[in-house]
Amino acid sequence: MGFFSKDIKTMDDLFVHTLRDIYYAEKQLLKALPEMVDKATDAQLKQAFQKHLGETKNHVTRVEQVFKMHGVEPAGVDCPAIDGIIEEADDIAGEVDDKAVLNAALVAAAQAAEHYEITRYGTLIAWAKQLGRNDCASVLEQNLDEEKAADRKLTQIAEAKVNLRAAS
Amino acid sequence: MGFFSKDIKTMDDLFVHTLRDIYYAEKQLLKALPEMVDKATDAQLKQAFQKHLGETKNHVTRVEQVFKMHGVEPAGVDCPAIDGIIEEADDIAGEVDDKAVLNAALVAAAQAAEHYEITRYGTLIAWAKQLGRNDCASVLEQNLDEEKAADRKLTQIAEAKVNLRAAS
Repeated sequence: MGFFSKDIKTMDDLFVHTLRDIYYAEKQLLKALPEMVDKATDAQLKQAFQKHLGETKNHVTRVEQVFKMHGVEPAGVDCPAIDGIIEEADDIAGEVDDKAVLNAALVAAAQAAEHYEITRYGTLIAWAKQLGRNDCASVLEQNLDEEKAADRKLTQIAEAKVNLRAAS
Repeated sequence: MGFFSKDIKTMDDLFVHTLRDIYYAEKQLLKALPEMVDKATDAQLKQAFQKHLGETKNHVTRVEQVFKMHGVEPAGVDCPAIDGIIEEADDIAGEVDDKAVLNAALVAAAQAAEHYEITRYGTLIAWAKQLGRNDCASVLEQNLDEEKAADRKLTQIAEAKVNLRAAS
């Protein structure tokens, strides 16, 4: 992060830096999600992770599109936040034997990742609009909407059965 | 995390583990917030951080209260997620010279921390209810409500002036 971020002088620099942050985060999640699909034993949860894996591929493409619209080469920067979130998800998943409890832990881990993305896209959209780039904001809003929908779906699955089974 | 989490066998264990995670996170934020108060140059933003520092002290106390209600000694576990979020906040704050741009960066960093706490409290409340501990859920809901209010306040400050000044 240090190398690039020394060049943060304007809000435009900050926007590009944060775009690089979410680009790295989306690509890390693209690597992490297949393992979550494998570990989930609840069919609906597995399907939700699988669907979100497909959406995440589109998110990467849309972020690349915003880089191009903004005249910047797509590139990531290290994002210790998403690395930490994924590290926690791996740790907890490796330490729970009971399948029902593991499903509940996987939902929580995935929602932590969703919330990280929700906050970053929220910020990026506000900054894009302030910079007069409603076109970039509009593309990023598609990603934000899908992250929010994925988060709501996970809450619904957890409340409908995953938590019930984990507690029984 | 490994040492404790090997003992995660039930949803109750998972609840206590995640309570330890947010306890550690709140205490790390208690250390990080005074620096954000210092760095913010917008008076309203500085005041919002100062207010949230006070709230965070109460959050630590309430989490300790939930530990006691649950018959468990208060203790933290390493939380790489919040460590990563704070590391990013430090990195970015150290690399932006312009005060107006720095204020915008500080808002984004603080909102990433808020969203981490929002997702963890959301999970803990759902699990507490599932475990028949509405009393614990009720205490945790007070923290969640304040995190959400702090996040909304930051959005409001950013949209009303911080982003405008950063972009000008």
